[in-house]
Amino acid sequence: MKDAYQFKHKHILGIEQLSVADIFHILDTAISFKEISSRSIKKVPTLKGKTIINFFFEPSTRTRLSFEIAAKRMSADTFNIAASTSSATKGETLIDTARNLQAMNPDTIIVRHGSSGAPGLLARHVEASIINAGDGTHEHPSQALLDMMTVREHRGTVEGLKIAIVGDIAHSRVAHSDILGFTKLGAEVRVAGPETFMVPGLDALGARVCGSIVEAVTDADVVMALRIQRERQDDPLIPSLREYSQFYGINHNLLQKHARPDVLVMHPGPINRGVEMNPDVADGKGSVILEQVTNGVAVRMALLYLVMGREGGRG
Amino acid sequence: MKDAYQFKHKHILGIEQLSVADIFHILDTAISFKEISSRSIKKVPTLKGKTIINFFFEPSTRTRLSFEIAAKRMSADTFNIAASTSSATKGETLIDTARNLQAMNPDTIIVRHGSSGAPGLLARHVEASIINAGDGTHEHPSQALLDMMTVREHRGTVEGLKIAIVGDIAHSRVAHSDILGFTKLGAEVRVAGPETFMVPGLDALGARVCGSIVEAVTDADVVMALRIQRERQDDPLIPSLREYSQFYGINHNLLQKHARPDVLVMHPGPINRGVEMNPDVADGKGSVILEQVTNGVAVRMALLYLVMGREGGRG
Amino acid sequence: MKDAYQFKHKHILGIEQLSVADIFHILDTAISFKEISSRSIKKVPTLKGKTIINFFFEPSTRTRLSFEIAAKRMSADTFNIAASTSSATKGETLIDTARNLQAMNPDTIIVRHGSSGAPGLLARHVEASIINAGDGTHEHPSQALLDMMTVREHRGTVEGLKIAIVGDIAHSRVAHSDILGFTKLGAEVRVAGPETFMVPGLDALGARVCGSIVEAVTDADVVMALRIQRERQDDPLIPSLREYSQFYGINHNLLQKHARPDVLVMHPGPINRGVEMNPDVADGKGSVILEQVTNGVAVRMALLYLVMGREGGRG
Repeated sequence: MKDAYQFKHKHILGIEQLSVADIFHILDTAISFKEISSRSIKKVPTLKGKTIINFFFEPSTRTRLSFEIAAKRMSADTFNIAASTSSATKGETLIDTARNLQAMNPDTIIVRHGSSGAPGLLARHVEASIINAGDGTHEHPSQALLDMMTVREHRGTVEGLKIAIVGDIAHSRVAHSDILGFTKLGAEVRVAGPETFMVPGLDALGARVCGSIVEAVTDADVVMALRIQRERQDDPLIPSLREYSQFYGINHNLLQKHARPDVLVMHPGPINRGVEMNPDVADGKGSVILEQVTNGVAVRMALLYLVMGREGGRG
Repeated sequence: MKDAYQFKHKHILGIEQLSVADIFHILDTAISFKEISSRSIKKVPTLKGKTIINFFFEPSTRTRLSFEIAAKRMSADTFNIAASTSSATKGETLIDTARNLQAMNPDTIIVRHGSSGAPGLLARHVEASIINAGDGTHEHPSQALLDMMTVREHRGTVEGLKIAIVGDIAHSRVAHSDILGFTKLGAEVRVAGPETFMVPGLDALGARVCGSIVEAVTDADVVMALRIQRERQDDPLIPSLREYSQFYGINHNLLQKHARPDVLVMHPGPINRGVEMNPDVADGKGSVILEQVTNGVAVRMALLYLVMGREGGRG
Repeated sequence: MKDAYQFKHKHILGIEQLSVADIFHILDTAISFKEISSRSIKKVPTLKGKTIINFFFEPSTRTRLSFEIAAKRMSADTFNIAASTSSATKGETLIDTARNLQAMNPDTIIVRHGSSGAPGLLARHVEASIINAGDGTHEHPSQALLDMMTVREHRGTVEGLKIAIVGDIAHSRVAHSDILGFTKLGAEVRVAGPETFMVPGLDALGARVCGSIVEAVTDADVVMALRIQRERQDDPLIPSLREYSQFYGINHNLLQKHARPDVLVMHPGPINRGVEMNPDVADGKGSVILEQVTNGVAVRMALLYLVMGREGGRG
């Protein structure tokens, strides 16, 4: 008799900690939530009475909104704290802030923070479940899960696919989580970008570092462009937007010439049109960018459900 | 056999698109919601499970709060996005922002935006209902509807009344929506203000442009003062607050001398006391300024109910 | 036959207005809410349909969050208004802002304001209940109530205890409310701090003004450190952080040498570790700082329940 799989994570800190079975379980759960939503059942009582705090030390519209919608669709109570109004600005340590939040007895704290590892630090000091909504240049697990969900919905499987990620790989928590996740599921992940956007160690994560964008997208099943951080444009090591667009912008010709005909085009958003991606691609037939957003709500419903509903959990 | 009237608008972009029958239907619906509220039934399950996003690109307390209270009294889930924290600041186009919101499957998006026409643009790119909560100098339909509701409650009808609107007519979306609405219902709308506040075309909207404030308020049933934008005081074409108050401030003497004895005094708020309106008028017996605010919640309940509950709607 | 006690306050403006019987009734109510919460019943329908506005003119994370959690645990609808986005910045008077909020028919407005007396002013102009969440240097009643609750839980009684409050007594609304509350319940309250932090009149409030920190903490049952306002460090009359820490920082040696062995250590948060309090004390065995936070939610549930559920109330 085979032992039933059980999801045992209290926190979602990164893709790194998740097994292949965990990832499939999250994606299957997300798909079932997506199906419920599509039957116009917008609200279920699953998490009624649960207290979920969105604790965002960096500005965010869509990730915060996506988590908040996910939580309210399951009838949880949500609370938003933005960094600029938080005690973080009053000299309190992050651990003290965490302990204070914990003292109000929340069930889950969703954290976005500019420092890599901040959610992990919080997890060691609170009873609540912690979900990492992006920490520094480290991980952004819910984004990678929605990316995997989207690819899997279109291709049936992730195994054996060729996934190209183009852009500022070094500083992208999205890239790091995607590399970890897609390789765990058996895909080949290629990364490409300007030299200053690449760092040693990407191959250790499991990525194949490509010397050119053409190498990355050749025969690719999926091409994902990362967002250029306009706010870092003062850095002399960073290429100008025009240079970037010329050498690393994803456009129709590039994909038609080198990628698979049915290549999926992805972007974590928000898009700088004409910089990292041309409109002919962003709005083209292979684009699944908006499906990524839709799946984001489903994945976050699954994560909230799993960390709060797990056996032996805090109930 | 007479065909039953049916409200068919998916979006509320302006008074311009509403027929006289639409306006009366909205006002009647608002009155019934107001009566329910006055029976201490504060919460009804009408919109349970609906997702309503307040998307405000300009700061606003009262309009946002009024919509949020309206939504929650009907048990909808509400989400607030303020421009400063939105992707709008990250170089994303408005259409992309709209599509991304749409991908999260909201039922209604309430939009305030500094550019005239922005809600209309959104309406063409999303499945959700769009309610214009003020766009540039264009329209502010829910404000005009609450104004019409307030006048109608006090006078029984709007037809044949003389309505004077005083202030910065050119830049006021409130004035534009009120001119359209009150004239549709058969009132005579007179407008007056400093020359730099008047523009060609106001008569085309249906207003009678008056050369003096005395002309505007003579025999008036309603006198509405618009808010002076203190933040525009650096403009050399704008009169100083003192000049403005002297020539265009509404005071008791002016009304007693020229307006009807039972004249209603209105203001969209927030008031600059002693500038566009004196306290003797703002707090006087004819003032219905706070009733406007109360009716605002009822009108917004009606709008949310009608756009989401319409036949053939998204359910 | 003894008349039953009845809580009759519509507003909670300060500890000053509360009788000893009122305070005990609030604390008993808070304890019963705390017990309910500890039985994993996180949400009760007590305040369903009630409208509660958090109106914060000063930034605050924890007090706002604590009130919001308290309100939602009783199923009330909550609305947040922050000063920077409020009409307060548009030249409207506080009374007009209050009347406008009132016109939307809320049940309770929770107010934090930089001016002493602002909540009292609001209370005279609205129908809703007003709860003071901190006004200028005047009062912070919910903080004092949670402090009293915490001490009473640990000592069984407050009567006869020696309570030392150390820091910027002059500018601390927490200190003022605590002095009033603890002395009402029969404790001896000693205050100590740099000369520029002391003002005439503290003894009139009921406090014993001590010339040294040693005098204040000698045989103390409770030692409470106030937060140093780092933002006031430019004031030449204010001691530097290093000086302050040296002379008025609470540390283990000081307490071991002078206070009772079972002394309780308190702080209203957020803590500047190493300034007003050393980690050996903040994290030591007598520290009840996080229990204060937990009790804060229970006290605020009690306050919301009592002002909205009172007999003859607005229902």
